[in-house]
Amino acid sequence: VMASSVKKFLSATLFEYETQKVIAISSYKIGLIYRGIQMLIVTYVIGWVMLREKGYQSFETVVSGVTTKLKGLEYTNFTEIPSIGDRIWDVADWAVPPQMNSAFFVTTNVVITKNQSQTTCEEDKDNKWHAKCSSDSDCIKGHVHGLGWGVRTGRCLNSTREEGLRICEIYGWCPTEQDVLPLGEGKILMTRVQNFTVLIKNSVEFPKFGVKRRNILSNMGKNYLRGCNYRPDHEMDKYCPIFRLGDIIKYGQAISPETAKQVWITGGMVAIDIHWECNFDYDEEECKPDYKFRNLEDGHVGRGWNFRHAYHYVEDGVHRRTLVKAYGIQFFISVTGRGGKFDVLNFTMNLGSGLALLTLATVLCDIIVLNIMRKRKKYRQAKIDK
Amino acid sequence: VMASSVKKFLSATLFEYETQKVIAISSYKIGLIYRGIQMLIVTYVIGWVMLREKGYQSFETVVSGVTTKLKGLEYTNFTEIPSIGDRIWDVADWAVPPQMNSAFFVTTNVVITKNQSQTTCEEDKDNKWHAKCSSDSDCIKGHVHGLGWGVRTGRCLNSTREEGLRICEIYGWCPTEQDVLPLGEGKILMTRVQNFTVLIKNSVEFPKFGVKRRNILSNMGKNYLRGCNYRPDHEMDKYCPIFRLGDIIKYGQAISPETAKQVWITGGMVAIDIHWECNFDYDEEECKPDYKFRNLEDGHVGRGWNFRHAYHYVEDGVHRRTLVKAYGIQFFISVTGRGGKFDVLNFTMNLGSGLALLTLATVLCDIIVLNIMRKRKKYRQAKIDK
Amino acid sequence: VMASSVKKFLSATLFEYETQKVIAISSYKIGLIYRGIQMLIVTYVIGWVMLREKGYQSFETVVSGVTTKLKGLEYTNFTEIPSIGDRIWDVADWAVPPQMNSAFFVTTNVVITKNQSQTTCEEDKDNKWHAKCSSDSDCIKGHVHGLGWGVRTGRCLNSTREEGLRICEIYGWCPTEQDVLPLGEGKILMTRVQNFTVLIKNSVEFPKFGVKRRNILSNMGKNYLRGCNYRPDHEMDKYCPIFRLGDIIKYGQAISPETAKQVWITGGMVAIDIHWECNFDYDEEECKPDYKFRNLEDGHVGRGWNFRHAYHYVEDGVHRRTLVKAYGIQFFISVTGRGGKFDVLNFTMNLGSGLALLTLATVLCDIIVLNIMRKRKKYRQAKIDK
Repeated sequence: VMASSVKKFLSATLFEYETQKVIAISSYKIGLIYRGIQMLIVTYVIGWVMLREKGYQSFETVVSGVTTKLKGLEYTNFTEIPSIGDRIWDVADWAVPPQMNSAFFVTTNVVITKNQSQTTCEEDKDNKWHAKCSSDSDCIKGHVHGLGWGVRTGRCLNSTREEGLRICEIYGWCPTEQDVLPLGEGKILMTRVQNFTVLIKNSVEFPKFGVKRRNILSNMGKNYLRGCNYRPDHEMDKYCPIFRLGDIIKYGQAISPETAKQVWITGGMVAIDIHWECNFDYDEEECKPDYKFRNLEDGHVGRGWNFRHAYHYVEDGVHRRTLVKAYGIQFFISVTGRGGKFDVLNFTMNLGSGLALLTLATVLCDIIVLNIMRKRKKYRQAKIDK
Repeated sequence: VMASSVKKFLSATLFEYETQKVIAISSYKIGLIYRGIQMLIVTYVIGWVMLREKGYQSFETVVSGVTTKLKGLEYTNFTEIPSIGDRIWDVADWAVPPQMNSAFFVTTNVVITKNQSQTTCEEDKDNKWHAKCSSDSDCIKGHVHGLGWGVRTGRCLNSTREEGLRICEIYGWCPTEQDVLPLGEGKILMTRVQNFTVLIKNSVEFPKFGVKRRNILSNMGKNYLRGCNYRPDHEMDKYCPIFRLGDIIKYGQAISPETAKQVWITGGMVAIDIHWECNFDYDEEECKPDYKFRNLEDGHVGRGWNFRHAYHYVEDGVHRRTLVKAYGIQFFISVTGRGGKFDVLNFTMNLGSGLALLTLATVLCDIIVLNIMRKRKKYRQAKIDK
Repeated sequence: VMASSVKKFLSATLFEYETQKVIAISSYKIGLIYRGIQMLIVTYVIGWVMLREKGYQSFETVVSGVTTKLKGLEYTNFTEIPSIGDRIWDVADWAVPPQMNSAFFVTTNVVITKNQSQTTCEEDKDNKWHAKCSSDSDCIKGHVHGLGWGVRTGRCLNSTREEGLRICEIYGWCPTEQDVLPLGEGKILMTRVQNFTVLIKNSVEFPKFGVKRRNILSNMGKNYLRGCNYRPDHEMDKYCPIFRLGDIIKYGQAISPETAKQVWITGGMVAIDIHWECNFDYDEEECKPDYKFRNLEDGHVGRGWNFRHAYHYVEDGVHRRTLVKAYGIQFFISVTGRGGKFDVLNFTMNLGSGLALLTLATVLCDIIVLNIMRKRKKYRQAKIDK
C-alpha cells in the first residue's frame, strides 16, 4: 500500500508534464498577422540582440595608461617687447606642468612679469575699482583685498600706468602684473604651435581575456613613427599616434571657424577620445584604436583658458620670481572601449529571453482577434471555457 | 493534387494561428486578486520603467573637460618666524602644481627649509631612531637609509637641535628639514584660504544628440560672473560656477565639525561632483549642472595630506633650493551625467517586456487558486485535462 | 435593470479570472525532461542571478579620492660624470611634478644639461639629418626646424662633438642637449628606486548608503603603518597601503623578465587598480580594498617613457636653466568598485523575471513533445483543438 501511494505521488508530480491547451484557428488574416509578428521578433532577436549588440559575447572594459610626448619649437623675435624679447621656446618652456595625468597643456600666448620681489609698489590699475583712492585715508593699512595683489601700506600714490589715476600702494610681489596680451587683443604670440606634434602612447589591457594592446601597432617601424602624421581618411595613417595640434583643432568640429581661431589666442579645451572596440573571436591584431576629437569651447562669456605659474630664483640674496600668465589649449585624453568574446552563458540567456519574447506574438494577436476582428464572438467562445 | 497539398501545408502552418485555450472563472475573490496583480504590474511598468527610469528614451553619457581658475590672496606677517616672514602669497605661490587634470591643490600650511645645498650636516632629529650614535663607528660611511635625508659620512656629531643627542652626520640637502608646523600643532597658517574662490569651467558634449553645454549658462553676463558665489538654495546662484573654498568644505558634510576644522590645518581630500541629468525631449536650456560636495577625510590614523616640492636656484655657482612641505586640501572634480531622448526601439522593447510581465499575473493567481483556495479541487479539474 | 447590467459588466470584467487551460500528460520521459528543465531554470535563478550576481541587492559605484606619499633616497657617486656628480636625490628631486591627480612619476634615469642660456651654439649632432651643412649657405638664417633646438643664425660650424661633421649654428637654449644616458645604454642610474615606497591614501564614499571607507583600516595603528609593506598573500599585510615600487613591478606580471628590467632603464607605465567590492548587508568593516597591478609596457618600438623639464635660475642677470630629460615609471591609480544592499524592488523584479523564465520549460518541452517524440501525433491532438 505504502509503495503504491508513493508511486502515485511521484507519477502525479514528478512524471507529469503540464502544457497549455491550444486552439488552432485557421484563418488567412490572423495567421498572416501571427506569423508576421513572430518573424519580426525573430528578426529583432537575431539581427539586433545577437548580431548588432553581440548578445552571444561577454564583455570587459579596458584598463589603460596614457602618456604624451610633445615636440615643437617656437621663436619669438620681438626685441621691442622686453618681456618677450628675442628668444626660443622649447618643450620645457611651453608645456606647463611638464606632464599631467591624461592631459597636456600647450602655451599659445603669455603675459610675463619679470623680476618680481616682495616689496612695495602701486596696485595694478585693473584693480582700480577697489584700490582707487584720493588720499592716504582711503587706503586702510593692513587691508588685504582678495582680488588684489597685496596688502595695503596705507599710502595713496599717483599711478605711473594711467595718467590722473591715484591708487593705493601695496606690499606684495612687485612690480604688479599688467594684464595685457603682448601683441595686443586678438593677436596670437606663438604662431608655430599649429605645427607642434604630440605622440600619444596608450597601452590597454583586457585582463579577463589576457590581451595587451598598444596604439603603436606592431607593423609600425621606427622610421614610420619618425615621419607619420595622423590622417583620418588614410588607410595606414589613421593609426599613426602622432598628431599635429592644428589637425586636432581642425578635426574637432568647432561650432564656428571664428571660435576655432579664438582657441589659439585666448586658449580653450579639447577632448581626445581613444576608443577600442575589440572582438576577440577574430584576430587580436584587428583590435585597433579609433580617435575622436572634440572642441569643448563654444561660449561667449568666460571663454578661453589661462593660469599663472612662476619661475623662482634668488639674486643678491633676494627671492625673486618671473610670473607667467599662460594662455593655451588644454587637451584631455580619455580612453574608452570594450572587448568581447563568445560566452556560453550570455548566449543561452539571450536566446532564452528571445524565445520568451515569442509569447508576445500570441498576446498581441489575442488582443486583435478577441477585440477587433468581426468574428470576435466566435473566437471568444472557442478560446474561453466558462 | 500537388496544388491542393501545397495549399494544405500552407494553411496548416502559415495561415494557422495558435492561441492558448483559456478558462474564465467567475469569482469575486480570485477576480479581485487577478485584476489587482495586473494593476500593480501596469503601474510598475508605466510609473517606474516608463516615467521614473525613462524607459522610452535612449541614453548617452557625457564627454567632458574641466579647468579651474583659482583666486585669492594670503598675507602672513610673522617676522619672528624667519622661514615664513612678512610676505604675500598669491595664486602662483599657493596653487602647486599650477594646474592638474580634474583636480586642484590649495596650500593651507607650510614647513619651509630655506637655502639648502648639497653639503654635510647633522641628520634630522626626527630620524634619531635610525641615526642616533654614540661614536663614529655607529655611522657607517656610505650607508644610505631610505627614510633619512642623506648618505652617512662616518662621523658622529653632537646635535645642535636636541640637547644631549648625538646623531650621524650626512651628506645631502643641508640643512635638513625640521618638521614642525611654523605656528605649532593645531594652528592654521593661512587663515584667509576659506575666502579663496575657484571658478570651475566645465564643458560637456552629448555627441549622439549633437548638444554642447557649459556650466556657465547663457544668461550669465560678465558682471554676474564677477560677483556671484555658489549658494545651493538660491534660484540663480545654485548655477554660479564660482565657489568659496570654505563653502565647499561646509557643504561637504564632514563627519564632525572637528574633522572639518582639522582639514584646514593638516590638509585633506574633497570631491566635487558635477552631475548633468538632461532630457532632450524638453528644452536644451533646461540641461543644467548639479553640484555635490563630499569631504573624503574622516580618519584618525594617517589623516591629512601633504607633499614636498622645491624652488631651485643658483647662487655664486652653487645649486641651492628652498624645500617646501605643503599641507593643504586636494580637490577632485568628477563630471558625471547622461542625456536622454525619445527612441522608438527602446520604447517598444520596454513596452514589450511590460506586456510579457502581465503573464506573471496568471502564474501568481494559479499558485493561489490551485493550492490555497478551498475550492482548489474544482478549479484543478476545470483547468487540467488529463 | 440598470443595476443588473452594471453587475453583469463587473462580473464579466472585474470579477473574472482567466487562466490557461492545461493538459497534464503522464509520461516518465517527458515528465523527467520537463522537471529537469524547470530545475535548471530554478538553479540558474537562485544560484546565478540571486547569489552570484546578488540580484536581491541594489548597487552603487564609489565616489573616491586618491593621494600618494612617496618615500625614498638615492645617492649617485659619479664624480667622473659632471652632469650627475656626487649628490643625493630626495623625493623633491625625483618626483616630478610633485603631485598629479591619480598618478605619480618616479625618475629612474636622467640626461642633465646644465647651465643653458639663450645664446648661440652648434645644433645637437642627433639633428644632423636636417642640420648638416657644408657652407654657410646651407644654414638659412631665421629658419626654425620643428625638431631642432633653435633658430638658424646662418653660419656653418665645425662640430666639437663629432669629428669631421659640419653643422649649423643656432640661437636657442645653449649648449644643446646631448641625448646620451649618463652611464651608457642599458645601465640604470638610480639603483635604489626599487626600494622606494609609496603610501597610497584612498578614501571612498557610497553616498546612497551613507558609508565612508578608507584603505587605511581602523585596526591599523601608527606603528603598523610605519613598518608594513604590502604583501598579497599575508593575512594582514594584504591591506597595508604602503607599496615597494619593486614589488609593484614584480606583481604586475610583465610579459617577460627582460621587459620588467627594461622598465627600470628607459621607463614605462604601470596601472594600480584599487577595487572595492562591498556588501553592506554584512558588517561594514568587511568592506576592504583589493589591489591589482599591471605593467602596461610590452612593446618593442617606441617603448619607455621620458619627458623634459627644467630648473630655471638667474645668474649675473642672465636667465639660465638646467634641462632634465627624465626617464622613469609612470604609475596610474584607478579606483573601481560597487557597494550592494538588499532592495525590495530589485529583489521582486529579479524574482519575477525568474518565474517568467519558468514558462520557457513548457516552450522547450512542447518543441520536443510535438516534433520529436514517437507519440507526437497523439500529443498534438490532445494539445490542439481546431
